[in-house]
Amino acid sequence: MAGKKREPKDCRDDEKTITHFYKGIAPAVKGLVDSCKGDDCFHHLEPTPIPTQESATQIINQTRRILFPGFFTQTRLDALNLEYNLGQETTELFERLSKQIILSIKHECLRYDQPCSQCIQRAHETALKFIQALPDLRAILATDIRAALEGDPAAKSFDEVISSYPGLFAITVYRMAHKLFELDVPLLPRMMTEHAHSLTGIDIHPGAEIGESFFIDHGTGVVIGETTEIGKRVRIYQGVTLGALSLPRDARNRFKNKKRHPTIEDDVIIYSNATLLGAKAVIGARSIIGGNVWLTESVPPDTKILLKRPELVFIGNGKKTTNKFKPRRKK
Amino acid sequence: MAGKKREPKDCRDDEKTITHFYKGIAPAVKGLVDSCKGDDCFHHLEPTPIPTQESATQIINQTRRILFPGFFTQTRLDALNLEYNLGQETTELFERLSKQIILSIKHECLRYDQPCSQCIQRAHETALKFIQALPDLRAILATDIRAALEGDPAAKSFDEVISSYPGLFAITVYRMAHKLFELDVPLLPRMMTEHAHSLTGIDIHPGAEIGESFFIDHGTGVVIGETTEIGKRVRIYQGVTLGALSLPRDARNRFKNKKRHPTIEDDVIIYSNATLLGAKAVIGARSIIGGNVWLTESVPPDTKILLKRPELVFIGNGKKTTNKFKPRRKK
Amino acid sequence: MAGKKREPKDCRDDEKTITHFYKGIAPAVKGLVDSCKGDDCFHHLEPTPIPTQESATQIINQTRRILFPGFFTQTRLDALNLEYNLGQETTELFERLSKQIILSIKHECLRYDQPCSQCIQRAHETALKFIQALPDLRAILATDIRAALEGDPAAKSFDEVISSYPGLFAITVYRMAHKLFELDVPLLPRMMTEHAHSLTGIDIHPGAEIGESFFIDHGTGVVIGETTEIGKRVRIYQGVTLGALSLPRDARNRFKNKKRHPTIEDDVIIYSNATLLGAKAVIGARSIIGGNVWLTESVPPDTKILLKRPELVFIGNGKKTTNKFKPRRKK
Repeated sequence: MAGKKREPKDCRDDEKTITHFYKGIAPAVKGLVDSCKGDDCFHHLEPTPIPTQESATQIINQTRRILFPGFFTQTRLDALNLEYNLGQETTELFERLSKQIILSIKHECLRYDQPCSQCIQRAHETALKFIQALPDLRAILATDIRAALEGDPAAKSFDEVISSYPGLFAITVYRMAHKLFELDVPLLPRMMTEHAHSLTGIDIHPGAEIGESFFIDHGTGVVIGETTEIGKRVRIYQGVTLGALSLPRDARNRFKNKKRHPTIEDDVIIYSNATLLGAKAVIGARSIIGGNVWLTESVPPDTKILLKRPELVFIGNGKKTTNKFKPRRKK
Repeated sequence: MAGKKREPKDCRDDEKTITHFYKGIAPAVKGLVDSCKGDDCFHHLEPTPIPTQESATQIINQTRRILFPGFFTQTRLDALNLEYNLGQETTELFERLSKQIILSIKHECLRYDQPCSQCIQRAHETALKFIQALPDLRAILATDIRAALEGDPAAKSFDEVISSYPGLFAITVYRMAHKLFELDVPLLPRMMTEHAHSLTGIDIHPGAEIGESFFIDHGTGVVIGETTEIGKRVRIYQGVTLGALSLPRDARNRFKNKKRHPTIEDDVIIYSNATLLGAKAVIGARSIIGGNVWLTESVPPDTKILLKRPELVFIGNGKKTTNKFKPRRKK
Repeated sequence: MAGKKREPKDCRDDEKTITHFYKGIAPAVKGLVDSCKGDDCFHHLEPTPIPTQESATQIINQTRRILFPGFFTQTRLDALNLEYNLGQETTELFERLSKQIILSIKHECLRYDQPCSQCIQRAHETALKFIQALPDLRAILATDIRAALEGDPAAKSFDEVISSYPGLFAITVYRMAHKLFELDVPLLPRMMTEHAHSLTGIDIHPGAEIGESFFIDHGTGVVIGETTEIGKRVRIYQGVTLGALSLPRDARNRFKNKKRHPTIEDDVIIYSNATLLGAKAVIGARSIIGGNVWLTESVPPDTKILLKRPELVFIGNGKKTTNKFKPRRKK
């Protein structure tokens, strides 16, 4: 399409009018500055900035490179240069993580007018504890990887699981964030899990307690709330919600930091789009929850719960047909 | 694993064969060029390029930095440098936005053979109107932030809501895009909301009308269609669809720009994975729609709608068990 | 808030303590290196690195620029410079793709101790075949674009569909990945579809077989499994799962590479959050599957399947109300 000659002249001519509009910017900026003084502007005008999503993402990626050496680097890694590589990555991670923890702690201190005593020291201490915990993180993630390989017939190799599976990524980030959550780091852990949520559609709160060999298949739409407890060798599918029952608005504050989410015991399987709500929902060991089930109560161990097959209405060209009829398999 | 010595010789040797394959590229390129002449190639060979997702994303991020000063910058921001910062960001935004609006308008003109009269001027005018509207955007977003803090017991502070909540991000982008939609900017608004959809799993069409104090929790899978109307203080959860009833293929064009989506009145709560379809679905004020409910009709005000508790089949090791039995709480 | 003067002194003072913590890093690194020798560390210490998500993403974006000339570039493209542009992009793609296929093949060879015979040559051959297939990819994607424009009343133009629709992006990436899957490229295809899954919430396995004029609306939560077969002119909505029935753990390996997923014949429509599971689920041509339907069996052609309207409990301020009552339409 020779659109060029169709382009109207004035599109080039009225360039000069731009200056007119520039005059309008100054008052607009003034309006923006003024509106910052009112209650309707949430700003963060502080001596120390708040941690950014970018830094949370860098911490996730660098920790992941350390946990799974050679999987997320273009550069060649072998048994010989491994120690240098890990040494450098770990030192960088220590600095990067310390800095963001400092920002997170100072931010809390300023926000809540607490004395910010020893917060730099606390931050470095916490960063070191996190790094010292990485071998254990590696070990529990190894159980998650094996669970994925065992749980999914489409899984070709553990390399595929590590490099491509969103469920493993979400669990990896959750396990990092949960460690920082346990070490009382504010803000940063939630930023990390929200990064995973954004990439995978899997929303795991850093406060949840999740045992080894955890597998999430597909994962989009999964929600695991703050006070959820999950045992060992549990498997869940896309769209599963482990959530809270809603509270009367007044009651809400009393419920902060109270158990509000389900407990899933060992070896439970929960199929796609099942919804389990509230602290009363304790799913006994080895039980199976079918797809689309909606539960707010307890289930004994070794129990299989299925939605009673819903009645379907078949309307075949006018007349009601049954589904006995078997069509030829598509070639 | 000393994989090195296991690496077969020929992997290094047959490097030279590459030239052979390069010979195949020229005809392949010719094939690609030729296929551009047919109907089966959608191309955009125009004097002006189309706006890109990158530019839409830059506009979103810069506007967000202006709306929430200090939250999304690594650099320190305080009451003293605020004005300079806002002045610079706003000027940049004006130029960036004007440029993309010009591309969007010219693109429409060329596509539909309309006279592109004064389109540069119109673009600058529109960009300025958008910037002038930012204080009001800030004010309504403040109501959304407070609604999130009130609506979610897990929310620790408004800083956490602003920096981490996907629901707030999706609503922020929607409110920007809706403003541009009201100013008749083509293409760009939808690109902006699709960026939010991609990051959050929340799909809000720029054309929807949404009142203040809107809260979306978790959000993955939420769909809010083009002609949806939502009142004040409405709360919805993950997987909620406010969609259109499907139309007979012939009828479809007649229905463009007609009301096709639900109306949600003030103070309504819609729980996870509920599906409301069609313009006839008018949900009266203060009503509550339970999880998994599927509705295509109206609901009076002050009404609570729940799915009748579905019958569950309990299969406990062979014999049917009830769910009276309470297992010991997992320690 | 003049937070500055509120910032506690010691926050600046104890900077020196940092050296103390640095001493802790060396042993931590040692621990990380040692843990690499055990079974609980998955590493990739090989002479050739594994393909990275970044490279998979670059291949997707460059192929997309070639398939839809002018849509995803800021630089102006017209009939005159088109050939140069396609020539350069295609040559780059050939090199980039060959390199990643080499890594994928070598990786398989090393992992499974296979002789890596002619793998560089095979890689270049495969990359060329992929490039030669691009005109056909363009042609089938043109049918998908038209299907989107016809299927969605909110769609304003094919430019909007191409530049903004997540469903089209997911299908585009699937069709690229499926071609590489057919050419027996390991690892890379799944990395590509996982990139699309991450951006769109649509999870299509590269092994699925999907006919022309395929449309996915909204798409978040869609899952299409490895052995799914989909005919022509099929339309599906957000949250639709075409999945496998779960297998007893022992049976799982026997089922790898066996048909485990549904077959959808021509002109079928599947509405939001419907779940179809297992190879036995063969949906006959022109059938319609309603929202939230859960199916594991066959359906004859020309059949409409709806969930029997679930009983709803209406609780209007105390007394049970009906939904005859029509509230005034919200203004």
